[in-house]
Amino acid sequence: MNNCSMKILLVEDDNDHAELVIRSFNECDIPNEIIHAKDGEEALIFLNKKPVGSKTNLSFFPNLILLDLRLPKIDGINVLSTIKNDNFLKQIPVVIFTTSNSPYDIEKSYFHHANSYLVKPNDYPNYQKLVNDLAHYWLELNKNNNNL
Amino acid sequence: MNNCSMKILLVEDDNDHAELVIRSFNECDIPNEIIHAKDGEEALIFLNKKPVGSKTNLSFFPNLILLDLRLPKIDGINVLSTIKNDNFLKQIPVVIFTTSNSPYDIEKSYFHHANSYLVKPNDYPNYQKLVNDLAHYWLELNKNNNNL
Repeated sequence: MNNCSMKILLVEDDNDHAELVIRSFNECDIPNEIIHAKDGEEALIFLNKKPVGSKTNLSFFPNLILLDLRLPKIDGINVLSTIKNDNFLKQIPVVIFTTSNSPYDIEKSYFHHANSYLVKPNDYPNYQKLVNDLAHYWLELNKNNNNL
Repeated sequence: MNNCSMKILLVEDDNDHAELVIRSFNECDIPNEIIHAKDGEEALIFLNKKPVGSKTNLSFFPNLILLDLRLPKIDGINVLSTIKNDNFLKQIPVVIFTTSNSPYDIEKSYFHHANSYLVKPNDYPNYQKLVNDLAHYWLELNKNNNNL
């Protein structure tokens, strides 16, 4: 892992949830920068900033995507499917981060190649703990070519 | 998560590495049962024990697959690709667990929809810590329909 700030794309339409995630990341030990997309369309617009066909300039690229499922304009499963069908974007770990514990949502997420599926806790201390644990796992332990 | 023992399929041809993983899992807090496949063919034979087309009997199914890349008979990428092209098996998280830090191996693993990519540490204390962290993440925090 390099010493630069880790970039996280948070795709979340609920402002209270987004605030909890951002606050939790601010308090965790790993230097990070969060880009907040408020719906699926905004997320895809952000991701399409990539230089087409190039792998040399990753400066716009998140090390991790935290993706809610219920989103305005383009829903989470469509965002996930677009990312995982793109040979360049599919390298970025996508963690579904949702209030839903439904087996249907879980199955659909893995069907479209979500890297992981986490259920949002109900209170701030658990939120903070979960964000700490996921940040440690995905930004420190897990390897991708953006955070070697 | 239920209170049953978590099942892990470890696909590893190196006996020393397999022993380190098994010892680390034995010492972690989460009740678990490890099935050790010594090559890619053994792993696929194990996974083909699934009741075809059925989702009701998951008793043979691992909650997590730890997959080495360099394997005799059928290599890790082929095992991964077989799992992730099967609509039933693709629900199981597959973590690549390898000594390779090569960008080529990392890219190829995500191309074939590895859920995560971890590099094996060089010494036992770090092995144990990594296994603890990955067990906590995948068996306690992450949801799939096998460990709700």
